[in-house]
Amino acid sequence: MTDRHLYDKHADTLVRALAAISERGYWSAYPESPSPRIYGEKAAAEGATAFQAYLDNRFPLDQPGTDGWIATEASPFGVELAVTYPHAEAGALVAAATAAMPAWRDAGPQVRAGVCLEILARLHAHVFELANAVQFTSGQAFVMAFQAGGAHALDRALEALAYAYAEMTRHPGEAEWEKPAGSKASAEPLRLLKRFHVVPRGIGLVVGCNTFPTWNSYPGLFASLVTGNPVIVKPHPRAVLPLAITVRYAREVLAEAGFDPNLVLLAPEAPGEALASTLAVRPEVKIIDYTGSTAFGEWLEENARQAVVYTEKAGVNTIVVDSTDDFAGMCRNIGFSLTLYSGQMCTTPQNVLVPAGGIGTDQGHKSFDEVAAGIAASVGKLTGDPARAVELTGAIVNDGVLDRLDEVKSIGEPVLDSRVVEHPAYEGAIVRTPAIVKLPADAEATYGKEWFGPISFVIATDSTAESLEIFRSTAGTRGAITASVYSTDDKVLDDAEAAALDVGVHLSCNLTGGVFVNQSAAFSDFHASGANPAANAALTDGAYVASRFRIVQSRRHTTS
Amino acid sequence: MTDRHLYDKHADTLVRALAAISERGYWSAYPESPSPRIYGEKAAAEGATAFQAYLDNRFPLDQPGTDGWIATEASPFGVELAVTYPHAEAGALVAAATAAMPAWRDAGPQVRAGVCLEILARLHAHVFELANAVQFTSGQAFVMAFQAGGAHALDRALEALAYAYAEMTRHPGEAEWEKPAGSKASAEPLRLLKRFHVVPRGIGLVVGCNTFPTWNSYPGLFASLVTGNPVIVKPHPRAVLPLAITVRYAREVLAEAGFDPNLVLLAPEAPGEALASTLAVRPEVKIIDYTGSTAFGEWLEENARQAVVYTEKAGVNTIVVDSTDDFAGMCRNIGFSLTLYSGQMCTTPQNVLVPAGGIGTDQGHKSFDEVAAGIAASVGKLTGDPARAVELTGAIVNDGVLDRLDEVKSIGEPVLDSRVVEHPAYEGAIVRTPAIVKLPADAEATYGKEWFGPISFVIATDSTAESLEIFRSTAGTRGAITASVYSTDDKVLDDAEAAALDVGVHLSCNLTGGVFVNQSAAFSDFHASGANPAANAALTDGAYVASRFRIVQSRRHTTS
Repeated sequence: MTDRHLYDKHADTLVRALAAISERGYWSAYPESPSPRIYGEKAAAEGATAFQAYLDNRFPLDQPGTDGWIATEASPFGVELAVTYPHAEAGALVAAATAAMPAWRDAGPQVRAGVCLEILARLHAHVFELANAVQFTSGQAFVMAFQAGGAHALDRALEALAYAYAEMTRHPGEAEWEKPAGSKASAEPLRLLKRFHVVPRGIGLVVGCNTFPTWNSYPGLFASLVTGNPVIVKPHPRAVLPLAITVRYAREVLAEAGFDPNLVLLAPEAPGEALASTLAVRPEVKIIDYTGSTAFGEWLEENARQAVVYTEKAGVNTIVVDSTDDFAGMCRNIGFSLTLYSGQMCTTPQNVLVPAGGIGTDQGHKSFDEVAAGIAASVGKLTGDPARAVELTGAIVNDGVLDRLDEVKSIGEPVLDSRVVEHPAYEGAIVRTPAIVKLPADAEATYGKEWFGPISFVIATDSTAESLEIFRSTAGTRGAITASVYSTDDKVLDDAEAAALDVGVHLSCNLTGGVFVNQSAAFSDFHASGANPAANAALTDGAYVASRFRIVQSRRHTTS
Repeated sequence: MTDRHLYDKHADTLVRALAAISERGYWSAYPESPSPRIYGEKAAAEGATAFQAYLDNRFPLDQPGTDGWIATEASPFGVELAVTYPHAEAGALVAAATAAMPAWRDAGPQVRAGVCLEILARLHAHVFELANAVQFTSGQAFVMAFQAGGAHALDRALEALAYAYAEMTRHPGEAEWEKPAGSKASAEPLRLLKRFHVVPRGIGLVVGCNTFPTWNSYPGLFASLVTGNPVIVKPHPRAVLPLAITVRYAREVLAEAGFDPNLVLLAPEAPGEALASTLAVRPEVKIIDYTGSTAFGEWLEENARQAVVYTEKAGVNTIVVDSTDDFAGMCRNIGFSLTLYSGQMCTTPQNVLVPAGGIGTDQGHKSFDEVAAGIAASVGKLTGDPARAVELTGAIVNDGVLDRLDEVKSIGEPVLDSRVVEHPAYEGAIVRTPAIVKLPADAEATYGKEWFGPISFVIATDSTAESLEIFRSTAGTRGAITASVYSTDDKVLDDAEAAALDVGVHLSCNLTGGVFVNQSAAFSDFHASGANPAANAALTDGAYVASRFRIVQSRRHTTS
């Protein structure tokens, strides 16, 4: 069964994805709207039913070395999950993955790409099931979970797969080398036949996060897998289900295709087990993809020396407000960015830098306080009606966010207080609206670090020039995934772009419509740059995939 | 002057190089024969004269921060060099390089590629001067110095430059993104114009080696430079001149093209200064390319945590002899490989594994001792006449090699003793012929580590299967740059290839003619794999270049 039929089946998708990554225009392979007109009338209900069937049950995963069943999740929506997952020791997982590798390596890039594309298709066929799992573990509202956790995650997976495929196939599998006859050393041409093998690095370890269990895990998972590496998926203890579902269908497709399903393994950890640390320093683990806290990311970089380590960590995202020709649009856009998923995105803006003397707008001069109030009013409008609010904010992912919301009450001058919202559908859901706090420019000790969650600061600066200096300083020191600027002055936009280049942060300019700074589109936007402390890699570019395999050649003489 | 005219001038070369790296067949941009029919009647004499003019003189390099002039070289040919080089503190070099970076970054990939190609052309115009410098610092014989130190080094530089250029330009500089109108969020299409900037990582540090000062340094130097990074070149204290000449002409071209010449800086070190260690941990240094001892390579990987570190270290190269249909050709080929540059190549075979019971050949059965004697006789023939010998062996690069030649006398059973050869032209030259020693298979404590220099072991194994096990073990533990196998049995060749894949070592099969295991051809052969402990990168592939820069994007709305 290790033939090319799955490659042939999905070749059109791959070809289109390869074009998309080189054009970087708009493209998506997996429709982001959960509309029944696209997915059919039954899809949503079937997905919900499939999700429900997992609850209060053993997750259907037949993995080697299972030594117990564990449940560690607690839904931000207050829903009782009680899914138990098969636990195994690191040694058993590593042994199973190692044994699975050679046949997968020898299958070659095309066969592997075909199987991985089939896994993506299978996951897409279960996208509603996946969306429910993401919603109830991460706290995202349903539509966002469907998009970020389903369709967009699959798009990012396909993007990474396309880069990896391009990298593996940029050289031919074989080449004839013929050196013309020289004057001395050889009277006849020298001929060699050379074979170039793509060989995997070893085991890939993917360490998932709580907020975006699929979106942040899929690129590394599929980039490592398609390049020949078995992958052990270590989910966040509070967001296991989305990756368990992923591993389930990956194993199903691998087995159908004639490969060892242990090429993809779930590694749920018992409370306090620190399984990620144990796995990360195993000599067989050669690639690690991690999203989460700076502390553990730095620990991995420091200690997992045998592996290539890709990390996405904390950052301080910034908006520089200089002037605007659409004050209402600006406030609406920023307000939406702060509200979406209660600011629990690595791309959510935190620091809004506004000149203390105010700004010029299409509505005339606006004072610093008026700008802060405009943004606050926009958030207020989006969150005024509980039923509408919760579809935007979702729920709070964990107590750390609540703790920070408490802490920020004693800091600065509030522009907007965080409110408790009762969720109309889930009475146990923990819902909070964004808090906005005014700070002076010299409060860098406060705003210079990440306050993950629905917390942002409107900071009064001397001037836009000082705003840009603060942006350089915080992004340079703490890193950033996103930055944006509002100005009607091309010089300011150019200065902001120069600052963004210097500190290596992607910049959005004058977003006032339906594009938000915290959203990045697969195949077009690079997510993170790898050029500042917030991440050491980007989704997705050549650097993200090229070190996941090596080329080993053999050569022999030919006569012709 | 920061226009595209140098790009246009060299575009054909770049296009051809880009084709070559994707085809991996034979191609070379710089003729390897120093024949006057190719380079003209005067080239050799002019090169020698230019080289002579450097001796006993201050090297013409006008660099910032010069605080003294130092001479650290001692020629293996016994020639008095006495070239003094401008010394500067790490801080001065880093400051100058940092200041040079922004304009170089902003010039973009095409302009940078044009300038770098012009540097290569300038170096090629001075290739005889370069060859003399490589000869008299490394101890290579002239023709080898011309080839490996001149033409082939330039080919490898161009190869790295082509990979880097391809990587920088695989995405467009700008793209329009238009998302079709959705049902809810947007009634109209969303349009953004996105700009993708290639941004350098920081300063590149190239740490050169004694034996191949140019060949091993050029790929990293040009890969870092063309991707926008200033480069500080720290030569080996005993092989400064080839890189000083390189830096001289690079600075000349940069200045002519309107750029800050401090984009390329020479950092010669005073005795005991350990300047490489100081530079390597500077926060501004973001890329390091190193060739040399395993100890310092591992120190760099361990300590230069702020940088991407590419290292080529020690390894144990192996030949597995199973059988042959050309016994004479095999012995001739292996003998040549051991003799070339007195075995002072990172690609020279060290361990020749032969079944104790002998092998089948076109000359009938040959005993283990006959195989060893056949190889020894081949070396003896190549080194019998001093005048011919020295043109192959060159001279011994340093006392470490002599010490090992002494040490090996007390080990195993000699098959061939190393001899002292008087150099007909340079009476101070230190010339030694190869030593070959017989060892049993259980002497892994001896043959399991690198004996850099003209030292090899013929090791008696139980069988070819055991030979392959020993190959797996030594290459897996200590690493290897090359491996080769001789067999008339396709099954053995396949087994050897499987072993080579498992331990990540490039394999040559049945080399009996004019191709040698220690030679790799730019644009076709990968040098090192990055898949075993001998090196963490290959020359050259996507992984070698992709992490030398990042992409930073900016996006703004467009209306159309």
